Amino acid sequence: MGKKPNRLRILSEKEMLIAVDAAGGEYAPREIVKGAIKAAQEYDVDIILVGNKAVLHVLAGHQIKKLNLQIIEAKEFIAPNESPMKAVRSKPNSSIVIGTNLVRDGIASAFVSAGNTGAVVVASLLSLGKIKGIERPALGSFLDITTATPTLLIDAGANADCRPSHLVQFAHLGTTYVKHLLDISSPRVRLLSTGEEETKGNRLIQESYSLLKATNLNFIGSIEGQDISKPTADVIVTDGFTGNIVLKTIEGLGDTFVNLLRQVGHVFSTAYHLQGRNLLRDLGLGSWVKRVDYREYGGASLLGINGNIIVAHGRSQAKAMNNAIGLAKQTTERDICRMIREEGYE
Amino acid sequence: MGKKPNRLRILSEKEMLIAVDAAGGEYAPREIVKGAIKAAQEYDVDIILVGNKAVLHVLAGHQIKKLNLQIIEAKEFIAPNESPMKAVRSKPNSSIVIGTNLVRDGIASAFVSAGNTGAVVVASLLSLGKIKGIERPALGSFLDITTATPTLLIDAGANADCRPSHLVQFAHLGTTYVKHLLDISSPRVRLLSTGEEETKGNRLIQESYSLLKATNLNFIGSIEGQDISKPTADVIVTDGFTGNIVLKTIEGLGDTFVNLLRQVGHVFSTAYHLQGRNLLRDLGLGSWVKRVDYREYGGASLLGINGNIIVAHGRSQAKAMNNAIGLAKQTTERDICRMIREEGYE
Repeated sequence: MGKKPNRLRILSEKEMLIAVDAAGGEYAPREIVKGAIKAAQEYDVDIILVGNKAVLHVLAGHQIKKLNLQIIEAKEFIAPNESPMKAVRSKPNSSIVIGTNLVRDGIASAFVSAGNTGAVVVASLLSLGKIKGIERPALGSFLDITTATPTLLIDAGANADCRPSHLVQFAHLGTTYVKHLLDISSPRVRLLSTGEEETKGNRLIQESYSLLKATNLNFIGSIEGQDISKPTADVIVTDGFTGNIVLKTIEGLGDTFVNLLRQVGHVFSTAYHLQGRNLLRDLGLGSWVKRVDYREYGGASLLGINGNIIVAHGRSQAKAMNNAIGLAKQTTERDICRMIREEGYE
Repeated sequence: MGKKPNRLRILSEKEMLIAVDAAGGEYAPREIVKGAIKAAQEYDVDIILVGNKAVLHVLAGHQIKKLNLQIIEAKEFIAPNESPMKAVRSKPNSSIVIGTNLVRDGIASAFVSAGNTGAVVVASLLSLGKIKGIERPALGSFLDITTATPTLLIDAGANADCRPSHLVQFAHLGTTYVKHLLDISSPRVRLLSTGEEETKGNRLIQESYSLLKATNLNFIGSIEGQDISKPTADVIVTDGFTGNIVLKTIEGLGDTFVNLLRQVGHVFSTAYHLQGRNLLRDLGLGSWVKRVDYREYGGASLLGINGNIIVAHGRSQAKAMNNAIGLAKQTTERDICRMIREEGYE
């Protein structure tokens, strides 16, 4: 690393250079490259692809010159199930370590990876460090399952075991993020629990509830599982274990629903001789299908770190990667890291 | 309490007498009574309604004689948000305390309540006691969201804070229950986690994983949120906090989706001049709608208690109550409590 930073800087004609992990994720490198090319065209950003140079040259082809794509070789690879700390320490030439270092060195404005989430978190911690006052960085992921404004779920999976003070910090991080990314002046914060009363939930939630009441945040109480998909909160705070499971449960059901909706469309077409028409689209249901489809997710932001890191879904295809790069651009433009630093959590 | 046990026994001509909390739940007493009447006809069981005698007489009307319904007065009421322990201790004449005592005294074979879940758990513990070797009774609730066989989620909400030994007991309880209720000889047990590997999840899950490996259960590893709706497990073990949130998240999304499906049906009808037809039913989607609709849920069994206790959804209407009574009958017929006692968890 640290190779050719100046050349890269000079080569980028645009304001923003986003590093993309071309090796991480189930559909890497092909779908990652497709998504990155789409994003370079759509969002007017410069892209650095980090991965196997030879393969990336073949996949990106003539787009390299046309879109001014940069390619950096990553000689090592961190697999999805490797132990994060061990992998990051032992593989300095992996796409994840190189990517976070590109952000640290000020070469890239942001790094997007669909690889091993734990490894991205560890590499970001080691390379970029935490923002002062933050004990644990957290993943903020938007739930966009209704037609209303999206709700941020934080922590979506970075910290499996949390203390009440962590949850309070997640509430602060989520508030600042949503405030500046979505222009919501006073985001409504809720705590994910088993009932709306302060006495409900487990010990972690009960203690976090009383701490949150004492903050200057717009904390409006707890929220139950069945209300997650309703527009009653801007930020939903939870530990990373529960957050991960809830997010994936929604994803799994979304898959089931989307398949069913497609079947319904097909059955209707056949039953009423409307073959060849995209009934779901005709009826305006396309946007709903998109909402529950993880392939459309824009990825989660790792908040509390000194740098813009976006964790994309491990099953990201071109669309999801394109959206994640879009989110990286927005996060950078809105200067979320600086906003979090300036709020001050000491 | 203890009033007229002999008279009740003599009055019941059937093998089974099920006590129903006519005061608990959002739609009590009207929908509870409707559901109980339906169940008395459908399942060939005798029913004791516990609640406000005068109101129940009006609601049940001529069915009382026709169906041999018994009515027991409950002069007190435990509200949904009351502190369980305090409420149960201070309200001996509440429908929940009376109902569990009817089971303790051998008058009723089972008790079904859509009231305050925590209060039902506490009253059951105090009145019926735990089965030897069980530290914490747990709620087992079937997830019936795919067309495959249902999966039991345990604990669905009785214990917000759990230790690894509790989760191992839940796995035993769930296994025995599913084995004898659904005739599955060796139920596949999975642990709800954030990844399939033993190293994933929080500390509770990691420790439970290694304990479960050492049991004689058919433990086949962890399961992630997105796979809950797939037929890859018979018993999914989790703590009651996560279980409650997952169950309610599924419920909320199910609501959203059922509404959407109904809209789709309506839009299709209007667009293609098919008004007046129930397209979802015509296309065989009715059964799917049922699966994600909590109004159809049969309730959760409180397992590990010396008695058959069914906790119905707080928003239960007649259908759900009818199904919960059906589950109570099945649980009693299959002698689940005895099976759990005989398995022995010492």
